[in-house]
Amino acid sequence: MRISELSTRSGVALATIKYYLREGLLHQGEQVAATRAEYDDSHLRRLRLIRALLEVGRLPVAAIKQVVEAVEDETLPVHQVLGTAHYALGPTVEPESGEPWDAALAQTDAIIAGQGWTITPHAPTRAELAQTLLTLRRLGMSTDVTRYAEAARRIARDDMDTIPLDAPRESAVEALVLGTVLYGRALDTLRRMAHESESAHRLGLVPEDSPAGEAPEARAAGKDQSGPTG
Amino acid sequence: MRISELSTRSGVALATIKYYLREGLLHQGEQVAATRAEYDDSHLRRLRLIRALLEVGRLPVAAIKQVVEAVEDETLPVHQVLGTAHYALGPTVEPESGEPWDAALAQTDAIIAGQGWTITPHAPTRAELAQTLLTLRRLGMSTDVTRYAEAARRIARDDMDTIPLDAPRESAVEALVLGTVLYGRALDTLRRMAHESESAHRLGLVPEDSPAGEAPEARAAGKDQSGPTG
Repeated sequence: MRISELSTRSGVALATIKYYLREGLLHQGEQVAATRAEYDDSHLRRLRLIRALLEVGRLPVAAIKQVVEAVEDETLPVHQVLGTAHYALGPTVEPESGEPWDAALAQTDAIIAGQGWTITPHAPTRAELAQTLLTLRRLGMSTDVTRYAEAARRIARDDMDTIPLDAPRESAVEALVLGTVLYGRALDTLRRMAHESESAHRLGLVPEDSPAGEAPEARAAGKDQSGPTG
Repeated sequence: MRISELSTRSGVALATIKYYLREGLLHQGEQVAATRAEYDDSHLRRLRLIRALLEVGRLPVAAIKQVVEAVEDETLPVHQVLGTAHYALGPTVEPESGEPWDAALAQTDAIIAGQGWTITPHAPTRAELAQTLLTLRRLGMSTDVTRYAEAARRIARDDMDTIPLDAPRESAVEALVLGTVLYGRALDTLRRMAHESESAHRLGLVPEDSPAGEAPEARAAGKDQSGPTG
């Protein structure tokens, strides 16, 4: 198809497609005439991936280039292609130096080993978790995240069922990125919803006719059934 | 204690404390002389809370003011004080108009009802989840988030055990904010770690002597044991 049709079918503006071509995010079409190139489904797939990384993954262009380069490198095993995208989704954490950091990293590796996980040593998630553990420790909070690790393990097994590991690479990467970000957001929102509900129940604010049953204190606290102010 | 001691004991710079006083984030001390005020543990607790909201919660000053006002309002039930802080932690989502949005909101409420949750109608988490469901639908992805809701429910029950609902309000709010943000980060990181590990296992890349057992393909794919590139 010509570039105009690529634009129509992908829903991406012509100027944007040309920008992606210039930046090397989108591979060149097949040059069939001096001023005309032919594009195909591979370009449609690539545009879908770029949009996913940009709009849902909110990745900067430099990171998208990295992912695209990994996708285009036929010698790179698919696990590493997926990894390049997956790693780009997390925050960038600068490791610290000193004993507290080393202890946090050691605890991180103990958690990984405890779950029987296979994590490459340079995975950015190691520094990510270490930083969170260090912050918890500095604030005097519990650093026992075992139950989160176990919940994550169960969730992730089902997550990976949705990733088509045998499909064209762009499709697998796209599914991984969209699934990681969007279902991750859903999980975070749902956890906070569950917090609100659990708090309401513990404070005796459950409405009398809710499925969770009556709480006698709720009658006395009747005026509070409107819940927290926004 | 004098303001200088408040600074030393809290670890907050004097100029910053004065800024908080001016902004009404920190309540005034007791004026004991023309140029001297006395501060106490309530001021220490408030400074801890402000730092938590600012540095961990990453809330803007306006949101911190809202939380502080809720904390200071003795007529406000504690559930609503917690709610003010908790709601401020989520992203701001602009509701859309039209049928797709309404459908996403209806699905959100069905999920809430299905879990037997008590969520106030103006909770920002409703629009948050609706937006994620709408995005999933537009991308042709599954909007079945039941397993995430169930995981969230189990996690949140244990989370709420760590919130001292009877403690001074600042302490309860501080615990809620720190726990929500920091354990939320840990959960997200752990999920992505579990993704990496699960992917490695499914692609047969588990090292031969790992606790997860041998995968015969791993011998053939021996060179891939270094995992994804960063």
